[in-house]
Amino acid sequence: MATVRISELGEFVGQQVTVRGWVVTTRSSGKIAFLVLRDGTGLVQGVLARKEVDDALWERFAGLTQETALAVTGTVRADARAPGGFELTLTDLAVTGPSTDFPITPKEHGTSYLFEHRHLWLRSRRQVAIARVRHEVVQAIRDFFYARDFVLVDTPILTGSIGEEAGNLFSTDYFDLGKAYLGQTGQLYGEAAAAALGRIYCFGPTFRAEKSKTRRHLTEFWMVEPEVAFNDSDDNMRLQEDFVSYVVGRAVERRGAELRELERDTSPLERVQAPFPRISYTDAVAKLNTLGSDITWGRDLGGDDETLLAREYDRPVFVFNYPREVKAFYMKENPDDPRTVLGNDCLAPEGYGEIIGGSQREDDYDRLLARIVAQGLDPQAYGWYLDLRRYGTFVHSGFGLGLERTVAWICGLSHIREAIAFPRQIHRLFP
Amino acid sequence: MATVRISELGEFVGQQVTVRGWVVTTRSSGKIAFLVLRDGTGLVQGVLARKEVDDALWERFAGLTQETALAVTGTVRADARAPGGFELTLTDLAVTGPSTDFPITPKEHGTSYLFEHRHLWLRSRRQVAIARVRHEVVQAIRDFFYARDFVLVDTPILTGSIGEEAGNLFSTDYFDLGKAYLGQTGQLYGEAAAAALGRIYCFGPTFRAEKSKTRRHLTEFWMVEPEVAFNDSDDNMRLQEDFVSYVVGRAVERRGAELRELERDTSPLERVQAPFPRISYTDAVAKLNTLGSDITWGRDLGGDDETLLAREYDRPVFVFNYPREVKAFYMKENPDDPRTVLGNDCLAPEGYGEIIGGSQREDDYDRLLARIVAQGLDPQAYGWYLDLRRYGTFVHSGFGLGLERTVAWICGLSHIREAIAFPRQIHRLFP
Repeated sequence: MATVRISELGEFVGQQVTVRGWVVTTRSSGKIAFLVLRDGTGLVQGVLARKEVDDALWERFAGLTQETALAVTGTVRADARAPGGFELTLTDLAVTGPSTDFPITPKEHGTSYLFEHRHLWLRSRRQVAIARVRHEVVQAIRDFFYARDFVLVDTPILTGSIGEEAGNLFSTDYFDLGKAYLGQTGQLYGEAAAAALGRIYCFGPTFRAEKSKTRRHLTEFWMVEPEVAFNDSDDNMRLQEDFVSYVVGRAVERRGAELRELERDTSPLERVQAPFPRISYTDAVAKLNTLGSDITWGRDLGGDDETLLAREYDRPVFVFNYPREVKAFYMKENPDDPRTVLGNDCLAPEGYGEIIGGSQREDDYDRLLARIVAQGLDPQAYGWYLDLRRYGTFVHSGFGLGLERTVAWICGLSHIREAIAFPRQIHRLFP
Repeated sequence: MATVRISELGEFVGQQVTVRGWVVTTRSSGKIAFLVLRDGTGLVQGVLARKEVDDALWERFAGLTQETALAVTGTVRADARAPGGFELTLTDLAVTGPSTDFPITPKEHGTSYLFEHRHLWLRSRRQVAIARVRHEVVQAIRDFFYARDFVLVDTPILTGSIGEEAGNLFSTDYFDLGKAYLGQTGQLYGEAAAAALGRIYCFGPTFRAEKSKTRRHLTEFWMVEPEVAFNDSDDNMRLQEDFVSYVVGRAVERRGAELRELERDTSPLERVQAPFPRISYTDAVAKLNTLGSDITWGRDLGGDDETLLAREYDRPVFVFNYPREVKAFYMKENPDDPRTVLGNDCLAPEGYGEIIGGSQREDDYDRLLARIVAQGLDPQAYGWYLDLRRYGTFVHSGFGLGLERTVAWICGLSHIREAIAFPRQIHRLFP
């Protein structure tokens, strides 16, 4: 007799099989009893008729509690009304792992309580659905780049050099070499790799020791950062819109069941098609002023400004050529307006805000050095990065997309902490 | 006129195109000049005939130096003798990024020098080939699990709990929560996720602050760790052999050009087919003694023992059921011989040693607690991990495969530090 996963039941209709999993719920009329079982691949209902089973089995059933691990044996029946489309007519049942007073019950729990029990909360239907969407998004990201001959380059977490501002970094003692910092971007390394391999991407965890407690911040999050030799800022935005459209489209196409479980209205996601509208920072400020914002030229867009602006469009929007004072030192000066840099953000619709920051990189040695000095960074620490402008400097561009923000948007989550299995926030390091 | 990548030249035979890239080498007979250009996607030779070009172009060519960035224009000709199969008859050439005294020349450099210039050394043919093999291996790993419905679960780097021995960990201050440690395994989290999702894997950087200076150690390396609900130790080894065979096979199949560049004899790799031979630890010790090792029962296999044993087989070999004293606390006690645990290593052939460690996990609450206490670990810190045995405990198994060791083996590298773009060793944190 075959031991099968719930997702495979369709191949065994009419046959007797064994399924291993955990109890979700049970109910009984006294004559007929129902069991919903989960095994990580899906849910199936098991049915037990009192008059067809012996007393011992009926008793064992009566003793089942939430999250008891068990092996059930039964005949697979197709049933369109059943969750998953199949039902099991049970003939046997063995408890393999008891469970008493499982901490996450169908009743409401507070957020703190749920995150303290995250290792168990992950078993709930909603969390399973989010995990599967995240999984699909990650594979879609990797497939997109693999199919386009981008080479994955894993950039280091432990770094001596510092990517952006010197604050907000976690550090650790590193043998006799002093402090190592946990990388908050792989970009600088990605630029070196782009000179070797043409088109590359890195995709790994990044770290920010910011004391931000917003619904859009984690101290540890995953970021994908492609970097392309010979792409300018326009090429870069084209790559971004193709990329975001692909990833969102694939999640909608392949994870419809999970998005329904999350009660996500997918129509806004279906509108995510390239090309995306583009608006310069300068025009965006003017538009925001007409919409009621008091933002003035030179200030960065706040979260409210992003939401206000994004609401004007039915898909993600690019805001490009920001004032250089609000952007990182490595962005290329705009030759048409040196107050600005050739960078862009991509704002998601529905209030989800920035999901991408990208730019053409400064490829002029002297200008880059001047920017490093002006920001109070140590040119020595950036010696290797400056080398890229010393030996065959090249036009190149790239961007970073935050995974959890993207998953939160696609799933329709109000806080990104649910978009990762074990979120890290300034007050949360367990489990 | 199209601007194309070198890898795309085959689609443009007979046409005039522009290619952007960097100078590898130049040579000239005075009448005819040759340029080898790379752009990250491949190499192409450009040819310039003195009598067919003007003086200015001939002069510009004469000034080219190694790693000069340039845009060349020319007609694509198929030429079976040419690297890549195509040649460019050049009609124009523009220098876009000069390069003077590029530090990595065709002459021999010392290892330290090369790693200090790793950001530039990555451009060399051998390093490009390694990067592409690594890229393929990673995608093969992810595709293997995606196709089999394993759900990717990214486990945290910053952890309060500690996976293995309490030493050898990097730590950082974490706001008001004391110290956070950089994870050296995602396994414990993976076990929690397996109870939610059935079959999962994590794949990310892991950290060991070991003072090991061997050719098989890095302080930061990538590890893939699947975990499967209801798999026992035998199922676990079957998964490992299918997995390793797939990954190696795909690298051989799709990265033949790169493996040739590395002068890798692929015949030992082609023999990597499931099933792999299996030998118990006890039998392995006896066999090693006949082979001349003085290992005694109860000691772990050393690197020399691994090499000696692996030499007896034409493909990877499993050594299973080690003494529990040499293995981690979470491995399940062997019911047939409680001195041992249901764990295995997988040893690669050709002296590459251990690439996988795996085990069935202890699923008995009391036994696991006793092991935690016996190892001097804090049961409080493992409370959430123990919960997995309290609520619906289940048979489950998993393993960890070290990416860099696997890439080094496939590429035939003598040291794993070349298997990652920016290696971290106890004396190396830059670039």
